[in-house]
Amino acid sequence: MLTPGDLILLVSPKGKQYLRKFDPTTNLHTQDGVLVMQQAQAVGYGGVIATHMGHPYRILRPSTYELIKGVKRSTQIMYPKEIGYAILKLGIGPGTRVVEAGSGSGGMTTALAYHVGDTGRVYTFERRPEFYDLAGKNLEAAGLSHRVSRFNHDISQGFAPEGMIPGDPATDPSGADALFLDVRTPWDHLEQVAAVVCPGAPVGFLLPTTNQISDLLRGLETSPFEDVEVLEILIRRYKPVADRLRPEDRMVAHTGFLIFARHAGTPFNGVVPVLPKTHPDREPFEDEAMPAAHAASDVPPGETVPTRDASLETEISSTDETTPVDPS
Amino acid sequence: MLTPGDLILLVSPKGKQYLRKFDPTTNLHTQDGVLVMQQAQAVGYGGVIATHMGHPYRILRPSTYELIKGVKRSTQIMYPKEIGYAILKLGIGPGTRVVEAGSGSGGMTTALAYHVGDTGRVYTFERRPEFYDLAGKNLEAAGLSHRVSRFNHDISQGFAPEGMIPGDPATDPSGADALFLDVRTPWDHLEQVAAVVCPGAPVGFLLPTTNQISDLLRGLETSPFEDVEVLEILIRRYKPVADRLRPEDRMVAHTGFLIFARHAGTPFNGVVPVLPKTHPDREPFEDEAMPAAHAASDVPPGETVPTRDASLETEISSTDETTPVDPS
Amino acid sequence: MLTPGDLILLVSPKGKQYLRKFDPTTNLHTQDGVLVMQQAQAVGYGGVIATHMGHPYRILRPSTYELIKGVKRSTQIMYPKEIGYAILKLGIGPGTRVVEAGSGSGGMTTALAYHVGDTGRVYTFERRPEFYDLAGKNLEAAGLSHRVSRFNHDISQGFAPEGMIPGDPATDPSGADALFLDVRTPWDHLEQVAAVVCPGAPVGFLLPTTNQISDLLRGLETSPFEDVEVLEILIRRYKPVADRLRPEDRMVAHTGFLIFARHAGTPFNGVVPVLPKTHPDREPFEDEAMPAAHAASDVPPGETVPTRDASLETEISSTDETTPVDPS
Amino acid sequence: MLTPGDLILLVSPKGKQYLRKFDPTTNLHTQDGVLVMQQAQAVGYGGVIATHMGHPYRILRPSTYELIKGVKRSTQIMYPKEIGYAILKLGIGPGTRVVEAGSGSGGMTTALAYHVGDTGRVYTFERRPEFYDLAGKNLEAAGLSHRVSRFNHDISQGFAPEGMIPGDPATDPSGADALFLDVRTPWDHLEQVAAVVCPGAPVGFLLPTTNQISDLLRGLETSPFEDVEVLEILIRRYKPVADRLRPEDRMVAHTGFLIFARHAGTPFNGVVPVLPKTHPDREPFEDEAMPAAHAASDVPPGETVPTRDASLETEISSTDETTPVDPS
Repeated sequence: MLTPGDLILLVSPKGKQYLRKFDPTTNLHTQDGVLVMQQAQAVGYGGVIATHMGHPYRILRPSTYELIKGVKRSTQIMYPKEIGYAILKLGIGPGTRVVEAGSGSGGMTTALAYHVGDTGRVYTFERRPEFYDLAGKNLEAAGLSHRVSRFNHDISQGFAPEGMIPGDPATDPSGADALFLDVRTPWDHLEQVAAVVCPGAPVGFLLPTTNQISDLLRGLETSPFEDVEVLEILIRRYKPVADRLRPEDRMVAHTGFLIFARHAGTPFNGVVPVLPKTHPDREPFEDEAMPAAHAASDVPPGETVPTRDASLETEISSTDETTPVDPS
Repeated sequence: MLTPGDLILLVSPKGKQYLRKFDPTTNLHTQDGVLVMQQAQAVGYGGVIATHMGHPYRILRPSTYELIKGVKRSTQIMYPKEIGYAILKLGIGPGTRVVEAGSGSGGMTTALAYHVGDTGRVYTFERRPEFYDLAGKNLEAAGLSHRVSRFNHDISQGFAPEGMIPGDPATDPSGADALFLDVRTPWDHLEQVAAVVCPGAPVGFLLPTTNQISDLLRGLETSPFEDVEVLEILIRRYKPVADRLRPEDRMVAHTGFLIFARHAGTPFNGVVPVLPKTHPDREPFEDEAMPAAHAASDVPPGETVPTRDASLETEISSTDETTPVDPS
Repeated sequence: MLTPGDLILLVSPKGKQYLRKFDPTTNLHTQDGVLVMQQAQAVGYGGVIATHMGHPYRILRPSTYELIKGVKRSTQIMYPKEIGYAILKLGIGPGTRVVEAGSGSGGMTTALAYHVGDTGRVYTFERRPEFYDLAGKNLEAAGLSHRVSRFNHDISQGFAPEGMIPGDPATDPSGADALFLDVRTPWDHLEQVAAVVCPGAPVGFLLPTTNQISDLLRGLETSPFEDVEVLEILIRRYKPVADRLRPEDRMVAHTGFLIFARHAGTPFNGVVPVLPKTHPDREPFEDEAMPAAHAASDVPPGETVPTRDASLETEISSTDETTPVDPS
Repeated sequence: MLTPGDLILLVSPKGKQYLRKFDPTTNLHTQDGVLVMQQAQAVGYGGVIATHMGHPYRILRPSTYELIKGVKRSTQIMYPKEIGYAILKLGIGPGTRVVEAGSGSGGMTTALAYHVGDTGRVYTFERRPEFYDLAGKNLEAAGLSHRVSRFNHDISQGFAPEGMIPGDPATDPSGADALFLDVRTPWDHLEQVAAVVCPGAPVGFLLPTTNQISDLLRGLETSPFEDVEVLEILIRRYKPVADRLRPEDRMVAHTGFLIFARHAGTPFNGVVPVLPKTHPDREPFEDEAMPAAHAASDVPPGETVPTRDASLETEISSTDETTPVDPS
């Protein structure tokens, strides 16, 4: 059963996709004929309705991937490969309060709003009116605008938007849990970034050129940030043909570099302790001794399972060194 | 202010990390001396406490990335690069009900449980007792076990665990919104997969070898699934040095292949319509005309912004072709 | 000074390239007007001549890369990234005798013929008449046909072409130093391959799909070959813009997999000794401790130079363990 | 039959390799016992001799790959993946005269010397005495020193070494066909580079950092060079297991960036014509319409072969537009 306002993805017999809010009072004119949307109500997600010419359309619940893909764009938007990783690095989940600039077309905003849920909030800043408007429309179309505070505001003046009511969850982004910047000169805004997030918060950046990475690294070097990482993510697709399996001929080779850092936290005895700017042991997660093989999927029946990886245990350590405080 | 039970990440002056549930009644014995955890309560996230030898430790709120990283493992666990992407492809977010097998060490389970929030649920199956136990411990350590139903159960007998009460949200995974399989022979379980998810649900698989991909593709060809994708994700890290920027010398070259598909949905006039097994236009998202440059970050001041990308609009189309149903 | 018959690459003001044999008796009609080729004789390589409309054309000596690029093709040809690596792995150089099948359009043949010089020889087999002819034309255009013996011959009948005169360097490929196979089912020809090369010779294969790799590996397992390697080569290009350096947006993601092996050599005491099918330590060349940095280009003045890498020395060892035979 | 001085690669039963010049008057002490080298003379390449303890050693003719691998190094040497590609881009083959700096450990020098044959020549410059000596020893060990002129000379003073006799093929590198620079600040030497190569010659550079690329691009912008390319080459290896085929877990992610350019050639009517600094159509070679599939290896029997690719033909055009000059 669909409820009016539910997001639906309509898929044509040829795989063409339409992202819509379900409205049983409308008809959808497709190239295969007219769909009477009221028919969708009964069949629900996974069901099929036919156009007046008899062509079946599947009704699907859109995934986050498809929500992002459905964003109308005037700019390049972030790709799911970067968004998915950033979501994990920034710890975005139900209840998170996250700041973003610029909004652009609202692709990243959509993903953030989806993941923070009704208990979190996205504060997104955009100085260009046409993008401010576009992002708003896209969030509305995705049914997520109620989780987002949008500001047509230039962050070079800080993250305190006009009309901000200090302490108001809807207009005051102070103490945000995380922040993501997709702007041209992020190094110009590091002080403002440090001021708007809570101590120790993770922050992320997207930049297209190596020169910008160098500039940002110089900025981070003299700002209260630590634990800096620079990386890029590549997706390689395969032709899904069982007997002639091989990679696609071409791939996207570059969409942007991701840079992550941590706000350096609060002072201790009057000074912010100098923790490493970069952690030499930051990557062990992907540099472990036991690679590639997923035990569940890769160990033939009867083979032994690898023993416990002690090295990891010591890295993010277990609780067994903790001792109860003597109550006496 | 920390509350007992809050997850904290303690970072040593050298960057060593400890993931813990905050317990003000304990001391933590580190190689830098003893930390009295009660001191952490006042300083909170981002703050610093010192060992009895005077070494400062930062207290951080762990990100999802760090939660996954903190999982103790006896097997290879999934990496954030694959987890983040799968989260988006499967549409995992607040409220999602998702099925997983096998649990393995619980890395993916942790991420799923984090993202579904208190309104969603993770059903995870594991036939090997030692992993069933390990995943349970890891979820407990991450403070997420209340969102997870764990079953020590072999899925070759289906996803109906012993003791399942039909319709009970805690024990009955039926009609799940999404499913992820990290097992050795997923093609043996496709009927059961189709039976446990809701019509049209997205499903994902992780496999280490090309032979397994071919086998799975053959299985999907004769099962009620469509819209098949095969891909892999690579992360390339850079040395974060502004004046000598370059990629790391080595990288992880392979952790596994990801395969995604859609349950084919419910019948229409008695038959399930044959939608494309694979969508030739599935990748346009990453094959657009306007690449690499992020308008916000890449267009120098004064340059014009690229015009609206009409091609995308038509792909996941806007609502303007819909017309109100004539109420007469 | 150019000599008639010299290969020249003519480059238009816009970068368009024409590969030709220099013939001072002709005119070349370009879209920029007519070039009187006799004028090229005096100006020579690196010089410029103008069309009758005054547009300057540069005259260059074509590199091997450009010779390969200039091959007219009806099929996909091998790319320089694979050819260059194969040349090194197969030890192709002045004097080498190398067998190839199929000729295809002659791209690899051109590269082989260029490198073996006038003292070596390429024996190339092609069963399809149209490619046999095309490769011949391309070799003629590149001025390299005198180094190549071409056979319109199906190698499933072995590498003994019709009309072969045993021991004749022009028609008998026996005892070849190396061999390269770019055919659809190379596993069907491994006996013939083993018969035509000299003992211990390196052989290479190009295959587009993973299924073919598995089939070839099975064939090599039961044939007199050892030291098997499977790899692929990726080229990633950058936009050559100093202040906005970044990778190209797209790249070629797959052209083919390369497989290399060694003929297992001659028997010893009646049996061919079982050497490793694959060498676990085969890759140390690219797995050394001292990576990325090229001492010459990367060590700032005044920094110390890394000390001698002893590990490598022992791998392909120096001569200091050899002792003169006692002449007494 | 081996001749004294022939290069041999001795392979132990476990795959350990020893690169040697064949000397029938010596014994080789291995960890498997003593090899009497005189026995190798009769068995020749591909043959086997046994140690006094009975362990069989294969005798192989080393490939160029193995010659490079056998270089003893104090620095990082260039890898075959870069060397092979550079050989093609620079057009190195029998008869080529090529300049190189710095010599480093002599890895690239070895490859260049191998390919230029006895009719070509390598001029290699190295300012650091310890590397000058090391490269000399390595070339001697590879039996290639007679093709190389080595200079212990700082190229910031130009490529005219002390003791140079103008016009002497052994000491005067003037008019070289190609040049390769692996030095820290190549932009400081572009005038000297332009002076030593022949007009229109291809030149190559290896650099580890993106900052250096930007600096070099700026230098090339104001120097007589054109047709600039920046790229990197990645090798991905697979575990050669037929039934469990998959990429190696790790790979080398960065060894260096390659930059190629062309000397801009000689003046025309007093000025060097401005040809494109970079060719927008430079990559069509790898951007063709008909990718991945190698017709010979990939088209199943009975399928049609792709038709002639006309686009390529026009790029490096055939001779049919040329017309004989009217002799009247």
